[in-house]
Amino acid sequence: MITQQLLHETIASALREDAPWGDITAVTVIPSSAHACAHLIAREDGVLSGGEVFRAVFIQTNASIDVTLPVKDGDSFARGQVLATVQGPARGILTAERIALNFVQRMSGIATLTAEYVSRIAGTRARLVDTRKTTPGLRIFEKYAVTCGGGYNHRFGLSDAIMVKDNHLAILQQTLDTGLTEALLHIRKSLGHTVHIEVEVDRLDQIETVLAAGVDTIMLDNFSLEDLRTGVALIAGRALVEASGGINLDTIADIAATGVDMVSVGALTHSVRSLDLGLDVTIALTDDSK
Amino acid sequence: MITQQLLHETIASALREDAPWGDITAVTVIPSSAHACAHLIAREDGVLSGGEVFRAVFIQTNASIDVTLPVKDGDSFARGQVLATVQGPARGILTAERIALNFVQRMSGIATLTAEYVSRIAGTRARLVDTRKTTPGLRIFEKYAVTCGGGYNHRFGLSDAIMVKDNHLAILQQTLDTGLTEALLHIRKSLGHTVHIEVEVDRLDQIETVLAAGVDTIMLDNFSLEDLRTGVALIAGRALVEASGGINLDTIADIAATGVDMVSVGALTHSVRSLDLGLDVTIALTDDSK
Amino acid sequence: MITQQLLHETIASALREDAPWGDITAVTVIPSSAHACAHLIAREDGVLSGGEVFRAVFIQTNASIDVTLPVKDGDSFARGQVLATVQGPARGILTAERIALNFVQRMSGIATLTAEYVSRIAGTRARLVDTRKTTPGLRIFEKYAVTCGGGYNHRFGLSDAIMVKDNHLAILQQTLDTGLTEALLHIRKSLGHTVHIEVEVDRLDQIETVLAAGVDTIMLDNFSLEDLRTGVALIAGRALVEASGGINLDTIADIAATGVDMVSVGALTHSVRSLDLGLDVTIALTDDSK
Amino acid sequence: MITQQLLHETIASALREDAPWGDITAVTVIPSSAHACAHLIAREDGVLSGGEVFRAVFIQTNASIDVTLPVKDGDSFARGQVLATVQGPARGILTAERIALNFVQRMSGIATLTAEYVSRIAGTRARLVDTRKTTPGLRIFEKYAVTCGGGYNHRFGLSDAIMVKDNHLAILQQTLDTGLTEALLHIRKSLGHTVHIEVEVDRLDQIETVLAAGVDTIMLDNFSLEDLRTGVALIAGRALVEASGGINLDTIADIAATGVDMVSVGALTHSVRSLDLGLDVTIALTDDSK
Amino acid sequence: MITQQLLHETIASALREDAPWGDITAVTVIPSSAHACAHLIAREDGVLSGGEVFRAVFIQTNASIDVTLPVKDGDSFARGQVLATVQGPARGILTAERIALNFVQRMSGIATLTAEYVSRIAGTRARLVDTRKTTPGLRIFEKYAVTCGGGYNHRFGLSDAIMVKDNHLAILQQTLDTGLTEALLHIRKSLGHTVHIEVEVDRLDQIETVLAAGVDTIMLDNFSLEDLRTGVALIAGRALVEASGGINLDTIADIAATGVDMVSVGALTHSVRSLDLGLDVTIALTDDSK
Amino acid sequence: MITQQLLHETIASALREDAPWGDITAVTVIPSSAHACAHLIAREDGVLSGGEVFRAVFIQTNASIDVTLPVKDGDSFARGQVLATVQGPARGILTAERIALNFVQRMSGIATLTAEYVSRIAGTRARLVDTRKTTPGLRIFEKYAVTCGGGYNHRFGLSDAIMVKDNHLAILQQTLDTGLTEALLHIRKSLGHTVHIEVEVDRLDQIETVLAAGVDTIMLDNFSLEDLRTGVALIAGRALVEASGGINLDTIADIAATGVDMVSVGALTHSVRSLDLGLDVTIALTDDSK
Repeated sequence: MITQQLLHETIASALREDAPWGDITAVTVIPSSAHACAHLIAREDGVLSGGEVFRAVFIQTNASIDVTLPVKDGDSFARGQVLATVQGPARGILTAERIALNFVQRMSGIATLTAEYVSRIAGTRARLVDTRKTTPGLRIFEKYAVTCGGGYNHRFGLSDAIMVKDNHLAILQQTLDTGLTEALLHIRKSLGHTVHIEVEVDRLDQIETVLAAGVDTIMLDNFSLEDLRTGVALIAGRALVEASGGINLDTIADIAATGVDMVSVGALTHSVRSLDLGLDVTIALTDDSK
Repeated sequence: MITQQLLHETIASALREDAPWGDITAVTVIPSSAHACAHLIAREDGVLSGGEVFRAVFIQTNASIDVTLPVKDGDSFARGQVLATVQGPARGILTAERIALNFVQRMSGIATLTAEYVSRIAGTRARLVDTRKTTPGLRIFEKYAVTCGGGYNHRFGLSDAIMVKDNHLAILQQTLDTGLTEALLHIRKSLGHTVHIEVEVDRLDQIETVLAAGVDTIMLDNFSLEDLRTGVALIAGRALVEASGGINLDTIADIAATGVDMVSVGALTHSVRSLDLGLDVTIALTDDSK
Repeated sequence: MITQQLLHETIASALREDAPWGDITAVTVIPSSAHACAHLIAREDGVLSGGEVFRAVFIQTNASIDVTLPVKDGDSFARGQVLATVQGPARGILTAERIALNFVQRMSGIATLTAEYVSRIAGTRARLVDTRKTTPGLRIFEKYAVTCGGGYNHRFGLSDAIMVKDNHLAILQQTLDTGLTEALLHIRKSLGHTVHIEVEVDRLDQIETVLAAGVDTIMLDNFSLEDLRTGVALIAGRALVEASGGINLDTIADIAATGVDMVSVGALTHSVRSLDLGLDVTIALTDDSK
Repeated sequence: MITQQLLHETIASALREDAPWGDITAVTVIPSSAHACAHLIAREDGVLSGGEVFRAVFIQTNASIDVTLPVKDGDSFARGQVLATVQGPARGILTAERIALNFVQRMSGIATLTAEYVSRIAGTRARLVDTRKTTPGLRIFEKYAVTCGGGYNHRFGLSDAIMVKDNHLAILQQTLDTGLTEALLHIRKSLGHTVHIEVEVDRLDQIETVLAAGVDTIMLDNFSLEDLRTGVALIAGRALVEASGGINLDTIADIAATGVDMVSVGALTHSVRSLDLGLDVTIALTDDSK
Repeated sequence: MITQQLLHETIASALREDAPWGDITAVTVIPSSAHACAHLIAREDGVLSGGEVFRAVFIQTNASIDVTLPVKDGDSFARGQVLATVQGPARGILTAERIALNFVQRMSGIATLTAEYVSRIAGTRARLVDTRKTTPGLRIFEKYAVTCGGGYNHRFGLSDAIMVKDNHLAILQQTLDTGLTEALLHIRKSLGHTVHIEVEVDRLDQIETVLAAGVDTIMLDNFSLEDLRTGVALIAGRALVEASGGINLDTIADIAATGVDMVSVGALTHSVRSLDLGLDVTIALTDDSK
Repeated sequence: MITQQLLHETIASALREDAPWGDITAVTVIPSSAHACAHLIAREDGVLSGGEVFRAVFIQTNASIDVTLPVKDGDSFARGQVLATVQGPARGILTAERIALNFVQRMSGIATLTAEYVSRIAGTRARLVDTRKTTPGLRIFEKYAVTCGGGYNHRFGLSDAIMVKDNHLAILQQTLDTGLTEALLHIRKSLGHTVHIEVEVDRLDQIETVLAAGVDTIMLDNFSLEDLRTGVALIAGRALVEASGGINLDTIADIAATGVDMVSVGALTHSVRSLDLGLDVTIALTDDSK
């Protein structure tokens, strides 16, 4: 889902930010003819995401660098495992190192945390979904990382699906003479047929009204476990059900067990802990540089 | 340090990413004439960073939106406090809300964590400094957030200062017939006079050789507390001393107490927890929209 | 759905293309102090689309130009009617004129043709929908124009909905050991819950297999009227039904009468006739320029 | 005349517009190892334009795709003829298909219509020329397509030639104390020597005054056939003569026969009918993908 | 001729280049509330060019800065004269100062040198014209500066006029079976009617052949004064005549006196001496900043 | 220090500026199959800078062009020497020629002038340093050229070092209750440890106060030779000393002999004379083009 163009532009921007007038240390210290071999090593267990991004950072810095990726995105790995091998001109490898790591550590951090959440809801019908609480500029990268960890993507942004939240509902009820059901039906009719409509409700008594409009998904926001169970029963398959609101590793299992279809967790992307991955580099002089 | 241009371009990119063909919910649900008033509320204690970014996201979405900022960047605040007030066209406020929060929550998360680290080293001569382990595309924003929390910025990237690390040292020793001191002196001579030179050492016995070259800063990487103390004594003010390597909230106080000048902590930016800030929105219909 | 940013960037690109080093005629011939008043006149009946784009071209050329729009996008107008009034510095008005017209004439051409198609299917349950056969660079502008004419938007592109066409089906059947139904179910399961799935079928006997997978929309491609009717009956509301393939003004009424939910017409955007709109300009010298 | 840079940037923009976060259908349905072979087939007679653009869209999507172009831009072809062959990774071919067609169908539509106009004026001294009524963002592409059909380009925009129209003449006469001839001479003197000056006149009695200023081309706007003949005789080779204004396929032959040097037709680019070209794709699984 | 867009983008790029993460001196030293008044002073006599660019650099840095321009582009000024007054926030003025000067000093340097050349050919029929030997990225700015000094612009680049040089002639003669006259006639026929054709010749005996093709301008390259006079007589008004090649302030008067229409001088733009202009700044604290 | 990205973007912008819709002469006159060989010839003695930029302009125009560079950046060369050989498609070589020369002539002009200045101060302890008086958009290219001539770079811009000038000092003294020394110490404490602090002084009596704050460099602005000597003695190695202000080829030797560490010369970049380098092109037809 990360297109080649997006990959290229995002990396170009990251490299420009880090070295607007070049890597003055590498240019000063490292002979242009020196070669290097480097290994990306896992310093803790995890799930990989961003292998291709890691590769592309090096190649975009210097097209002569080769990167092999023995572990694929979405694969689990153990501490000590070699996740990638990088070979080529030493200058380019040292220049690209930090940016390549910044991408793959963040993305693998997301994938690993996602996998942890997913493991907690195994055996339930629920899927783990992400939110729009992503880092500005990295939305697609982070949503991709969520899928590497076994999670699912919610809408990508404000353009590709309807999400009617509390504020929208409030205003809808003020602006229309009709009831809420009619208002939602009216919205549905004005939209393209491929547009998914999700409505957030705060109370059980809102469900039937919303459901009557034929919405696709109902989000139960900050419901107690009991209310979630009641909500699922009420909806009874007439719409998908998403549980949302302050869900964490401790609470997700119980929430998923209520029978909801999706559980959304903002922390997957709003609070990213970079995974501990390191690059071990060995530099060899060529005959030219000696 | 965030220039107006950088602010504008980064926000433009974030808005485009979130809504490539507009906010279809707001356009469908909210009358264009509806007005809204919103308050940015702290849901936990913290230190603010990104107030102006928060404001600019709204204004860039719709120039008619007004944002006032009672709390300034760098100020501490308590749970429940109002950090900003937003007024203007409801559509624009709802459209911009998530992106504005994504910026200010991340930046305040960094500032708050930084302040926590800073509080641990109060009373020592050490300053807390950041690293290049920042989110791709947000380097300047994150380094600014570190200063809001009372931390200091290390170099901004590969272009504005020299950092000779272990790999560089290894290659330097292989490529030059002279000793390391001479090699470093040679580098110093080739550089502009405004360029700061920092050298990373792994062992105490490297210090004197490096110092003899008149470098500006010596980084003691992964040194024990005892070795840090010995290193500081050895250097004796002839260069600045930076402690680095796996430093966390538990260990920083002891490290700072060894007498080093700087303590660098990658976690300030590589593992950002978004601070819990929320936007409470009230929408009012105008006569036009009723 | 045309965001402010997209509007700004698209117009900037159009102005740069037309006048990379300025309007040498206006600069040479027209005093900088001359003022002009211009009226956008309909030279034929039609439906307006692009009024705001027309306005923005002038303002982006010179912020002192005022544009009023008595007719709104989506409104019908008659030959001779004044659609917009433009006032301000004469140079800017003459420089922007052609680009402003190029936008509004194309967009109104699309809206007007769309309205003609829509009028042919009045009284049926069918909606008119557009396709991805849009002009490169103007996708959002053209899809917006379709809505001005009373049509509906299909997906915006390859990212926001699934469309399984004949080639995809062929490859699906080759790659999977399972039957097609299972293959489609498998796809559905791998996708986010907001993603709409539409499948194109060429023959009636494909319908049940596809339907069994719970797809959202079935596109009946190049079906005869009789087969369309049979298809609609078969599907019986279990999915939305789209008729597609070579539909024109002569055939659309009969196709819509078969009971399909959507009729898609590529010609709405792939073959745009610019509507005949003209700008009547009167230039007045100010005291300064006499 | 379409530079490599312009080609690259225009295609990049079109691909981004169509698939901001990738082709979710291809990625979900088509194995990454599947290969495809596709033929671009003419579904009606025409003149090709945009073959290289068609090719570049595929290559820019995936550099492993090969495109051969048996028919060259400017060549005529018959219904059923193969215009291009595309081979390579199936995903990339399906992703690029629609955008590649959107370019080549529009450009060939322009070339084919241009050729039709050109055929009507064969045997006269007149050339067919285009206008600035082009699609925003595609000026160079469309002007190139006109040359593929045997037409000629008028100026590219406001910067590369002077065109004095009725409004300019009116203001010129108000602002200058001198007569129109002197005013035009004054303009000529202020311009670089490579700048071509064309003046539009509405009446025969304006010709001599304009001619006396030594302009390069006189445009006779909306003249009757008889007035065109009189105008050509009056000008008598002292300037080039362009006929303009509402010229269509029915009237162009008579207009060209009056002896004018150029006939300009806005419809060549302002009302583009995409030519009916289709891509027949066959997908083959490789051993890897089975 | 410098469009608003080009102005904005060129300045944005210059500001970003100078201060990618802000003006750390101004931010550290100057209170944000301090105001400043500054005067642009001529430290030598000259001709102004770039006043509006100078102004725009300040405004683009901070929209609250006011700039008045008592001297207009193209006006001569004497040492000591005030060319501009700048008022507003001190930080923005200090940040923008150097970039604003870099533009106006270079542009005024070009205008002043151009005026000097122009003065040498006063009384002849010749005009001074520029070349494509401009600074990459500043073509339009430098060509505009030439006009401020009383010079004229040659073509803007490779797209807006034909210039057949020695290499082109050589290849033309090899590729075509016909003579050179026919080859040039053939080229003329293939081009749009607004395209000016200039041909460079090295010897007198080439003139008649070129002239027979009806070219617009003949460039006599590196001709002696006597040959220039002979060439002018030969051409006898049938084409414009440009003298070119190593012309300097010492030789231009004699060359212009030979009767040529244009004299082109690369040095106008390829060797720019910045004019000595300085900014005298006075900073005043406001009550807020004291 | 010129990164690949910056090189690519700067050249792209220069090519677009010169040929927005292609090189109409080359396309019309030169067969696409013609090949050319060209030599870059020194028409005067000098020092090369920009060889790689020269090469990249050709390759970016057409990837089939080969450029070899027998002379390296920083090497001296004599009139008549071949500095580069270019081979490949004739069209691309002719199209790129002028832009490639515009870069290499300017950059070599800077390097050659720099070398001349450097030769004047041989045998002193002083280095020659550049300033921020560079051409907008070409800062990095010009600073690189200075190093090719043996000069050193001062700070790259406003972000990477502190330069406290007279205006800053004046305001500092007004805003702070403390003395100047304390003010400067306060600034130092607020800055990152890698930031170099330079302070400009106009009088000898300012030196001690500034020095007491531990600044890194003191700039003696427009000091007489005697005052420079006194200043150097006063500072006595406690800070670096830069001499600045109206220094030229005649005065630099004496200034350097005063014992200062750096001499800065704005003329290195603010008044660039392009070095006289020419491209001798021979075009050969291939069998295809005959």
